This record gives sequence, structure tokens and C-alpha cells, in this order.
Amino acid sequence: MGIFVILLHASILWAQTRQEIRIPDVMGYRTLKCDFHMHTVFSDGLVWPTVRVDEAWREGLDAISITDHIEYQPHKADVPTNHNRPYEIALPRARDRGILLIRGAEITRDTPPGHFNALFLDDINPLDTEELLDAMAAADKQGAFIWWNHPGWKPDRKGWFDIHTTLYEKRYLRGIEVVNGETYYADAHRWALDKNLTFMSNSDVHDAVPLEKTTAERHRPLTFVFATGKNIPALREALRAGRTAIWFERKVIGREEYLDALFEAAVRVSDIQYEQGKTNAVRFTLRNDSDLPVDLRRTGKAGPRELSLPANAVARVRVGVESVEKPVQLSYVASNFLIGPEKGLPVTLAVAGQLVIDIKAEIGRD
Amino acid sequence: MGIFVILLHASILWAQTRQEIRIPDVMGYRTLKCDFHMHTVFSDGLVWPTVRVDEAWREGLDAISITDHIEYQPHKADVPTNHNRPYEIALPRARDRGILLIRGAEITRDTPPGHFNALFLDDINPLDTEELLDAMAAADKQGAFIWWNHPGWKPDRKGWFDIHTTLYEKRYLRGIEVVNGETYYADAHRWALDKNLTFMSNSDVHDAVPLEKTTAERHRPLTFVFATGKNIPALREALRAGRTAIWFERKVIGREEYLDALFEAAVRVSDIQYEQGKTNAVRFTLRNDSDLPVDLRRTGKAGPRELSLPANAVARVRVGVESVEKPVQLSYVASNFLIGPEKGLPVTLAVAGQLVIDIKAEIGRD
Amino acid sequence: MGIFVILLHASILWAQTRQEIRIPDVMGYRTLKCDFHMHTVFSDGLVWPTVRVDEAWREGLDAISITDHIEYQPHKADVPTNHNRPYEIALPRARDRGILLIRGAEITRDTPPGHFNALFLDDINPLDTEELLDAMAAADKQGAFIWWNHPGWKPDRKGWFDIHTTLYEKRYLRGIEVVNGETYYADAHRWALDKNLTFMSNSDVHDAVPLEKTTAERHRPLTFVFATGKNIPALREALRAGRTAIWFERKVIGREEYLDALFEAAVRVSDIQYEQGKTNAVRFTLRNDSDLPVDLRRTGKAGPRELSLPANAVARVRVGVESVEKPVQLSYVASNFLIGPEKGLPVTLAVAGQLVIDIKAEIGRD
Amino acid sequence: MGIFVILLHASILWAQTRQEIRIPDVMGYRTLKCDFHMHTVFSDGLVWPTVRVDEAWREGLDAISITDHIEYQPHKADVPTNHNRPYEIALPRARDRGILLIRGAEITRDTPPGHFNALFLDDINPLDTEELLDAMAAADKQGAFIWWNHPGWKPDRKGWFDIHTTLYEKRYLRGIEVVNGETYYADAHRWALDKNLTFMSNSDVHDAVPLEKTTAERHRPLTFVFATGKNIPALREALRAGRTAIWFERKVIGREEYLDALFEAAVRVSDIQYEQGKTNAVRFTLRNDSDLPVDLRRTGKAGPRELSLPANAVARVRVGVESVEKPVQLSYVASNFLIGPEKGLPVTLAVAGQLVIDIKAEIGRD
Repeated sequence: MGIFVILLHASILWAQTRQEIRIPDVMGYRTLKCDFHMHTVFSDGLVWPTVRVDEAWREGLDAISITDHIEYQPHKADVPTNHNRPYEIALPRARDRGILLIRGAEITRDTPPGHFNALFLDDINPLDTEELLDAMAAADKQGAFIWWNHPGWKPDRKGWFDIHTTLYEKRYLRGIEVVNGETYYADAHRWALDKNLTFMSNSDVHDAVPLEKTTAERHRPLTFVFATGKNIPALREALRAGRTAIWFERKVIGREEYLDALFEAAVRVSDIQYEQGKTNAVRFTLRNDSDLPVDLRRTGKAGPRELSLPANAVARVRVGVESVEKPVQLSYVASNFLIGPEKGLPVTLAVAGQLVIDIKAEIGRD
Repeated sequence: MGIFVILLHASILWAQTRQEIRIPDVMGYRTLKCDFHMHTVFSDGLVWPTVRVDEAWREGLDAISITDHIEYQPHKADVPTNHNRPYEIALPRARDRGILLIRGAEITRDTPPGHFNALFLDDINPLDTEELLDAMAAADKQGAFIWWNHPGWKPDRKGWFDIHTTLYEKRYLRGIEVVNGETYYADAHRWALDKNLTFMSNSDVHDAVPLEKTTAERHRPLTFVFATGKNIPALREALRAGRTAIWFERKVIGREEYLDALFEAAVRVSDIQYEQGKTNAVRFTLRNDSDLPVDLRRTGKAGPRELSLPANAVARVRVGVESVEKPVQLSYVASNFLIGPEKGLPVTLAVAGQLVIDIKAEIGRD
Repeated sequence: MGIFVILLHASILWAQTRQEIRIPDVMGYRTLKCDFHMHTVFSDGLVWPTVRVDEAWREGLDAISITDHIEYQPHKADVPTNHNRPYEIALPRARDRGILLIRGAEITRDTPPGHFNALFLDDINPLDTEELLDAMAAADKQGAFIWWNHPGWKPDRKGWFDIHTTLYEKRYLRGIEVVNGETYYADAHRWALDKNLTFMSNSDVHDAVPLEKTTAERHRPLTFVFATGKNIPALREALRAGRTAIWFERKVIGREEYLDALFEAAVRVSDIQYEQGKTNAVRFTLRNDSDLPVDLRRTGKAGPRELSLPANAVARVRVGVESVEKPVQLSYVASNFLIGPEKGLPVTLAVAGQLVIDIKAEIGRD
Repeated sequence: MGIFVILLHASILWAQTRQEIRIPDVMGYRTLKCDFHMHTVFSDGLVWPTVRVDEAWREGLDAISITDHIEYQPHKADVPTNHNRPYEIALPRARDRGILLIRGAEITRDTPPGHFNALFLDDINPLDTEELLDAMAAADKQGAFIWWNHPGWKPDRKGWFDIHTTLYEKRYLRGIEVVNGETYYADAHRWALDKNLTFMSNSDVHDAVPLEKTTAERHRPLTFVFATGKNIPALREALRAGRTAIWFERKVIGREEYLDALFEAAVRVSDIQYEQGKTNAVRFTLRNDSDLPVDLRRTGKAGPRELSLPANAVARVRVGVESVEKPVQLSYVASNFLIGPEKGLPVTLAVAGQLVIDIKAEIGRD
């Protein structure tokens, strides 16, 4: 009788709905999911500004900025230059959707120095200047937050040049894209750490974002901003204070304090159960209550050599122990939580101090 | 620069982890996700008993029963008959996994009367009798919970016969499969309502369950049991008391009180915002915090004609209103929450009594 | 040792490659896969014209037309009206990609009469007239092929009105959309048959087409054109001659002669094998060498009641027969090949005249 | 009007149908898709023998062998040892399905020497001996083809030992698993080349094979056998002659002659088109008519640095050339076609000698 099965449902429907991304709030801050670099037909992008808001809504983002190139206007024969229009066109839709839309632009020079995004502008036009430093000053005057985009673009001319030192010392340059689109820049990762720049990760999308559910396996690169609230002043304060982390492919990238907080909030040990006998052991459940996958590699002596905990998944672990009396501390590195280039986050799984469940009594009647 | 991105990750990993199903607890009970009908090589199934536990763990189930046929043993030349072995083989794995495993069996007669499952047995052997009523009495003596499987099997000989009345009046028969595998039985749905039988839904799986994530679009048919705890006595009490609901394809099926409780716990109105002007309107967010999709069809005068809210999704709704002073009550039917054959659950979306958010002040600085 | 498995591969790559659609050529014609109705930012669409070519390339299409509204120009404050620009912008990309790009436009009036597409234009500007009949005459003068779009739009004002009769009698109106986007119009289906209009099916896409592989389960609505070659004059000749069929969801829709030819070219009986014994039977293999799924429902006495043959799949069928001497003719209806509203294509599976394979001798050495 | 759309179809249907794998026949041989290593409940597997045939049918395989362990029988308390039963139980289903089923078994010793599979047996019982060499002799006497399984299992005791030399010199050992399950063995790859052993790749599946479509991204490891026909003697002759190649994840592994033949049969250059002007160039289409993905890395001076051609996909390539008069030879390595450990197959794309298509004349009327 009856094989089992199922399915089928109009997946198009979700296009009209929003799929939240589950990332825990940490350290008393709200974790905002953001993408601050994208283009429209108003520079070299291929979509209308409202599309960017709809994509962000669908994918569970909290805040975006449309950052069309100021100086590069390949469509201007058909779409006359008007730097503020993408923001103005998209704003009513952003209000309807509850998406924070930040007025921004991309200051575009060949590399070096390269491209820079400026956010929190009141008017983009004053940035349309001949000299780079004039554009930077105009942005700074408006209270902008500015970062260096895709450093590493054009591999034969990449590097930190004098002009970057100048921008940094004038405090124009406050952040850096460690991730842009599908590329991770190890150099930028080191500079962000050494020079205390804000970690940025953005899609730099020009085409339409594929109409698919955001999952741990498939999502656009995001900047998590740890802000005091979901509003623009809070976002600006957090970016200036450097309170961000990056989600790129399976990896979470950022300063140790934020990655540690994310890990602690996402991963929990529960259902601890001791077994006494020929060999003593402890069993426990490891839960991941987030959309971030977690890859663990053992650094201590006890525990499975590797443990992979997908998003929102639960694993059951058994570890041999010498004594069931002593609390167990398992040492691991979360190898996809990067606190430096190729350097995972050290974590401890504390299996202790919790109620011992006697499963035998509970399961089965015999 | 940078197209956007991403992906790739060994999906096989999840085979070793558990994906929880998000179904809210209701009415002070814990909602257990259960499948009480499945087979192994010990009757006409095609897998070893431990496979059933691993599948259940992976798919986020709380309790199962392996119910091999007592009288139908097509593999007995190779696997000698031993009714209690599937349970005994699977039990250690169930304990490790934290799955409630219930000793059960399928009493198998041609239809009418058909097949019946008995759960909560101490020993299956006394049920291996010539006469059906003897098997039923033996099960009942052990305190079994018994239900009628796939009523409607063999369409030319289906129906409620005298033998069913006898079983019902002797209080052997306490439940009925409204869903078995990929089939829904409208007749059984009516009998369950009329005769106060417990609603059952099971996979009756013989082959291996496909190794895929359980989703709203693709899951095995489940019985939700509203129990006082996750243990076998609580499960038995709830089944006898009729506290169940069914999840089949996109549909939730059961008594109105349970479906109403599930709906109320899953769907929330929030972020209410009034607009005053030429036309008054109210905007609000509708969230579905469960893995159950919700299809709404308007029955009142206000609101979108249709609203489909996928699992764990959020929709933003705008409704024209006469006055922004009066609370708004929107009348809908949840057309995939069936309180009778083809009869959806009436629901009210109350858009009122909540903080009015002035989004304009919050978004944008201008 | 070794569990098995695998995977992972950058699915983004396929964005840069083309996935051919397998639809057989029939009746000596080449089957072109076409979508003749879509929009860009030059009217109310949301993408740049080149995007339409890239989408078509990726999805295995042969020919498209960008048909921006002439009279409806909601973006004109930012994108000044210039009817011929979408074609001019997209043409170089179409040449590179090998996509046939046809200059077209949508003549847009409220309904009735509604919207009409005109293809094979030299210049769109002369169609920008006050009077509908003037626009039609201007298109006709350029040798256009014109059809009625989404008849049935605005259900309260739908129907075949006098104006449609006028257009039809003047031989302006030569085709009709039986399918537009996600909607099938049964009325249009009947009119196409009764008035000998060319069957059209188009996406009318405004947003970006999701970046996914085209499959039998998920594809945009297409018009198959049976043309003497892949070039614009051949396409025009075929559209005027009415040699088209529609692919919509699982359904193929069109005149019986074309559907019959598609079915015959796609589905083959092979590996016929007779069994003689207590019961005589014939086994055979049914192959579907196309991307069109085939759903068969028995209308004769022999054969399985239902047979579903997915795209590019093979089924093995066993049919009881009276004698193994006589050729077997199985009568079915291909229920998803619609020769009229809800009317499937009658087909015969001829299981005869082929080599009988003695599988026993071939398989196994014993 | 009309967004575009899509979808939905019961994917379960394909479980009852077969999805062919497209791998070209080469060098006058037929390419058989095979998996010669798998288990059932008759040793330590978890499924009934017929399941293995159904899986093979569904996934487009031509031949399999069920190779239960002779000496390791963990289920024997419930499934008494009977070495020939898995074959006998599965054979009728294999005949129905047209799958070649080969009687085989796994000779199981701790490592070294490890495990060995023997195929083409008449009776497995004589191989159930105390001494390994006796078992080998018994298999050899029946004309078996024998290979070494998963060499590299237990990394601390892996290697080619004297016993392997003995087996090899006695000509018992004729093949070696370069791939088993999810593991590739570089040592075995070298031994296969150095000692002229037949390349083998098998799933060694114990659990059920996931019910999914076989794709280039997700398939079980296969051995391609280049045989004179689809029958058991031809298969045996080809295995003894070493005519095989391996498909593992995205990789094809084997001797250069077979990989070269597969590449040549799968990948075609067509639609060549020369452009003369400021810079000369040639455009061409690269087609992959197989289910094998192809990753190309440039080794010469001309052409894109990297080219990835998914299964059954088409790419359009543009290459700058000095003169449009001379035929163009592009040098690449197919980096996922391994003719040695980490050594890709050198290939040449010859863009020459074909009809030049003047696309400008064909596309567009203007």
C-alpha cells in the first residue's frame, strides 16, 4: 500500500514574499543584513532602480545602497546623467517594503587609486569633480562613510599606494571591501585588520539577482552591521565604529570579537547524557540556530575530528571521557569563521552544568 | 567588477544531521511530528529496520513505529518470521538518536475488513491468530491503540462494513488513516469527524525514503500529536484522546480546534502602519513562523482576494480602509487548513491595537 | 567502506553557456523556439534591452522580439521615448549570440480593443498614431505580422468585439495569444481554431527572467515555429502560414497536425519482447527523446491506465495480450497535448513489426 | 499584464522511469555505464537486492554487480548466510529492467591485503575459504575478473605489500579501484598506470541510493566499460582488456587513449565566423553533447584563459587572430579529464575547414 510522497507548489509565489535570514543579534546590537554596492541602468547596471529594492526585500535584507558610477555613464545617450535619480526612484518602494535605502554613489577612477563608495549623502552632484580629492572632500563634508571597493582589481596594478595612505590619513577612507561579488581579497583582509578599517562585503551586482531563495549554500555576499537599531543614523554609527562582519559563501569573516559572539549565539550544546560502563562517554546535541553553516575541526584531544553543522541543523555527538564526573571542554576551531586569512576562530564546546537526561527511562516502555 | 555569486556545499552532510520541522506547540501541549506506519525487510519492505530510525532523525521526526505485516511475509524464505525483531534491531539506534520508537504491527486481512495497525504492544506474537477478532482482543489486552489503515484501498470493495461497526463498538477501533502515502480519503475524513476517530496520517513507506531535506513542498505525510511531553505514555494518552492533526502536501487536516490553534500560533500580524490622505489605507506585515504554508482566500469585503504565505515567509499587505481610527478585521478562509472535506478554516486577521510605526521618520534622513 | 556520493559545481557558470531545448524538427521544417513579447526600461519593463538577448541565449531560444509599448512610457522622464532604441541596442548582442532579433512593438489601447503586437517592422515610429486603425495600417504597410495579446485581460470587459472583427476582416489580425505569461485563455484557444488564427504563446516578461535552467518543469511559455530555416523571412512566412504550437507548463497546445507530428517524433516504442506462458504478454520500452513531458491516459482496453513519461525518460511497459502472434495497437490520449480546450491528442502506440529480443539469452550466463 | 512563468510537476514520477546518461560510444565500442560494487541486507548493506536493480534502472546504468561480503555477515542471526541469494533474488527484476546483472562477491580480509571483488562467478560458495589464496584460486577457476577494492583504506596500513605482488603475478589481480564511493586514491591511480591494471570506480553503496536524477553535478561514481556489445561476455572481455574509464564527481579518469576518444566524441567546434577589421577575430560555437562537464585551461597563446562547458551546453567563443586566412589551432588542457594524478588531458580545438557563416546576412533584415 501507498508509497509515500509529495510536493509541488508554485515557487514563483515566494517572489512576492520575503524570506528572513536567521542571523542572531549579538552584544546587545541588532544584526542588520546589508548590501551597499549595486548598479542600475543609471550607470552600467542592467535593471531599473526599484528592482534592487524588490530583490532586497525578497532575500531578507534590511538595508541597501544603490551606488551607480558617477563618472562612468555608458547609457547616457538613452538615460541622461542624473546622479540622484536612482535613489529618488527607488525610495517610495523602499518605504513600502520597509527596506532602509541609503543614498550612495561610486567614485570611479582607474586603479590606482581605483573605486570608492560613499554612503549617507544628501546630494551626489557635488561629488562629480575632476579631482579625486575634491570628490572625497565633497563627500566628507556631507558626513559620508567611504570605503575602497574591490582592492585587487586588475592584478597587475594592485596594492596599497601613496594615494591610499593619503585618503586614509585624511580619514576619508574608513572601510574596505574584503569581499566583492565572488572574490575574496586576502590583502584587503590583512589591511582591514592592520589599519582598523571596517570590513565590507557587497555584491556589486549589475545584472538582476537570480530569483531564488537565499540559503546557506547560495546567497549574495552580505555585510552584517551590528547597529543599535534599524534606522539610518544607527547604521552610520555602526559602520564608522567598525561593527561589521562578512558572510561570503560558507564563510563568516571579521574581527574575532564579532565572530565569537555570532558563534556563541548560534551554536548550543544541549540534551547532555552520560553513559557509565566499560567505556565512559557523554552524548550531547549540538544545535545551530542560524542560517550560517558551521565547520568544526578538532584542536584538542577529545571529540570527533570534524563536525559539520549545516544551517538550522542538529547533530548528535558521542565523546569518550575518562570520568563522567568532570565537565568536558572540547577544543575546536570553526574553520569557516575567519578571524584572519586562512585562520579559523578557536571555540570551546562546554559540555557541562546541564541536566542529565536519562533517555532509557523516557524512551520505550520496557 | 564583480558579478554576484555563489554556492556549493556538500549536501550529503545533512544526511548526518537533523533538520527540525518548525510546527508550533499549541494549547499547552507539545507538538510531536510522527509517522506510525512503515515496513522493513521483515515483511514486504525493502530496508533494514535501523534505516527507518535514521530517516526519521534526518527529517526532524519525534516518534515512529515500524509496523511490519504479521500475516504477509514474502521474504520469509530468506528472513525467517520473527515479529518482534524489527523493533529490537531498531531500538538501540532510536535511543542514540532520541527518537521515540513504538512497538507496533500491521494486522493484515483482505478488504473488507482490510488492514489495521496496533501500537504500544509488549509482544507482537499473540496477535498472530487465525481470527481477526482474536488478534484485536490480544492487542487490546496489551493496551494497544488501533486504527484502520488506508480505508478506500481497492475502490471496488471499499466502505464501512458491519465488521467495522463491530470493531468500533468493541472500542478496538479508535483511529483512521485519513491520509496514507500519497492518498487522501474523503470518506475517512467524514467518518473521523462523525465517529470521533483519531485523525491519522502515515507514509506506509516500503522503499527507502528519499534522502532530501524536508520542506513545505516536499515532506512525508505526518501525524502531529499534541502530547503532554515527548515520551511514550504521553503519546498514547494523546492518541486515545484524539489530539492529532495531519500534514499532507500543502494541507493541514483535522478538527477545527487544533487547526485554529496551529494557525493562530503560526501567523502573526505586525508592523501596522496607517496612511491618511485621499484614500485611507493600512499596511501591515503578515508573518508565518512555521513550516506550514498558508493559503488565504478572502471571504469578507476588505483585503487582497488571495494571499499565499509560504513557510517561514513574510508578506507586506496594503488594505484600503474607510477610517484609520477603527480597528480592521479581515475575514479569510485558510483554504489549505481543512476542517472537513474541501472545507477550509475560517480565520480573522485582526489589524489593530498595535503600535503605529511612522516609517517615514525612520527610513531616510531627508 | 565508502558511502557513495558527490556533487558540487558552480551553477553560476551556466549563465555564460546555453542550454539547448530538445524539441524535434517535424514535417521537414525546423522547429524554432521563440518568445515574441517582452519589455525593457524603454516602456514599463525593468531591464536593459541586452538582457533579453542574454536570457534567450541561456535558455536555448532561437528568436525573440522586444515589444515595448508605443503609447505607454512610464519611464520617459528618465528614458526619453525612442521606439527603435531597444532593437538597436540589443541587435549587436543578438548577432554575437546567434539569436534572431525581430523588430517589434506593442500597440497599446485600453480593452476593448486591447493590446496588439506587430513584428517585422522597419521603423516603429509611424505606428505612434492617435487612431488604432492608422497604427494598424502603418504596420501592415511595412509587412507586419500582427496578433492580439492576452485576450481575456480585464475579465469584466473581455470578449470578441466589433473592432476585432474589423481588424480580422482587414487581415490585420493574423494571430492570437492563447497563452500569455502564466495565463491560458480557453476563449482564445477556441477563436484560434475557429478563425484560423496563428497560435501564439509569449512570456510578456517585464522583470528579469530567473537565472535557472530551462526544464520541462520550469520554463517560460514558448511559441514553437515550424520554419523552413533559421532566418527572419522563414520565420515570417511560417507565422503567416499558422505553423506554430505552444509550450506552456506541461502542456503542448496547437492544431492536431503539428501536435501529432511532435508526438510521433518524440515518442518511440522499442525493445519489444514477447512472453508466452500461462498468461501471454508483451514488454516494450517507451522512449521520450524530447524536453516535452508526455502524459498518457488509456482509451482502449489494453495497457496501463496511465503512463507518464517525463522529458528524456524511458519507461518499460508490460501488457497482457491474447496472442503473441498479432501486432498490438494501444489506444491512448496524450492528455497534455491539447488540440482543443481540455481535449487531448488521440495517439496509438504500435507495438509491432520490430525485432523480438530474447533477453534471457543475453543477460546472465546461466 | 503577464509576468512570466513556470513549473511544477510531480518529480516522483521519474522514480518509475529511467533517465539515460549521455556518454558517447567511442572507438567502435559501446560505452556501458556500470557500478560493480554494492551491498544488501545479505551482508552489511541496508536494502533488499531488488532495490539495487531499481536504482540502476532509474539512474541510467547498463550493468551492475551485487557484491556482498562473503566473510562478514553481521545480519546472519536474522538473514542466514546464503551467498548466492542476492543474485538469485535480483535476477528476475534485472531481466525485466534490461539491466545486466553479474554474479559477484567481495572477498574480505583485514588490510593488508584488504578486500577484493570477483565477478562473473557461477557459484560463490567455493570462495568461502579460510585462506585468501584458496578463495582467489576458486574464483579464478570460474573465470572471474578480480580487483582490489579501496586501496588506501586504513591510511596507517596502506600500501602495496608482498601479498599484492603475489596476487598480481599469479594474474588473479587484474584491476584496481581508483575511486571508491567518495574517495579517489592517487596511489591506486599510479599503480593502475604502472602495472597496467583495469581502472575501476564503484559506489560501494550500503545504504539506499538517494532518489534523485543523475546529473553531471550529482551522480554515483561509475566505471565506463568500452565493450563490443551490451552482454556479459562482451563486458568480461572488455574488463580483462582494460578498456574502461572512470566518472567521479566532475572528473573523468583513465588512460589517455580513452579520455581522448571521449573528449573528441563529446566536444565539437561549429558555426565558425571570421571578422575582418581593425582587429581580426574568429568566433565559434563550442558544443558539449554529453553529460560530462568539460573544464578547459589554455596552454597555448590564443583563446580565453579558462572555458567551462557544462554538460549538454553550448558556449560562444571569440578569439583574436593575426589573419583570418589561416586555420586556428587552440591548445588547451581538459583539466578534469585526468590521464594521471593531477594531470589533465592535452587537447586541441581546431577552428578551421568549416563553412563560414555570414551571420549579418542572416539575422535582421536591415
